[in-house]
Amino acid sequence: MIGIVIVSHSEMIAEGLKEYAEGINKNKIKIIAAGGADDGRIGTNTLKIIEAIEEIFDGNQILIMVDLGSAVLSTEMAIDMLDDEIKEKITIIDAPLIEGTITAVRMAQEIDDVDKIISKVMEVREHKKLI
Amino acid sequence: MIGIVIVSHSEMIAEGLKEYAEGINKNKIKIIAAGGADDGRIGTNTLKIIEAIEEIFDGNQILIMVDLGSAVLSTEMAIDMLDDEIKEKITIIDAPLIEGTITAVRMAQEIDDVDKIISKVMEVREHKKLI
Repeated sequence: MIGIVIVSHSEMIAEGLKEYAEGINKNKIKIIAAGGADDGRIGTNTLKIIEAIEEIFDGNQILIMVDLGSAVLSTEMAIDMLDDEIKEKITIIDAPLIEGTITAVRMAQEIDDVDKIISKVMEVREHKKLI
Repeated sequence: MIGIVIVSHSEMIAEGLKEYAEGINKNKIKIIAAGGADDGRIGTNTLKIIEAIEEIFDGNQILIMVDLGSAVLSTEMAIDMLDDEIKEKITIIDAPLIEGTITAVRMAQEIDDVDKIISKVMEVREHKKLI
């Protein structure tokens, strides 16, 4: 099953987004939160990201959704430290965190093709919220 | 002082984003969270949004940051029910929730001109996270 790892500076954001996403997930995708620094404060934590990836990995693709700045850096550091077998299955998605994650989970309910899901998520930044 | 209202389907996302944003706010902007349905479950709540706007309003501009779908609708319904004096000071920002809010707060540390802040926040959707 495709996995999504949510990397945010805030543990509450990551956990809240996981809850929000699980509400529309009919067991089609695995979702795990990796938010906050190791003491639960604002920040990102490479070790927490590594553990989340290893927990969710089952041989299938993993998408990593990130918020800002050091979330990307910590994720890249985490990936560097993983086994090649896992590493090659990971894609960091360059999309808005909340909007991208919800779109990925919605798409995964309908399609299994990870490249198509990623391409839909990449379109999210163009979506208008106000009509 | 300019106010920011965070409207999310998730109370945890809204509260987490407020905490994240307050971490970079040197008392230059007021931030309030209005997340989740009235029972704390996933959803949006017009009354909660009205109360947040009224609590933060001090005669200055208010920016409302939203996540997806009904967050916009509930915010528009909330604005409809407010006094004209407040209504005319409100702008719903069409930008990614986390990335837009953090950018708004960052900008507000340096500039007071709300139109310039909005214009910077509107550019956020073009920002690349991966280099």
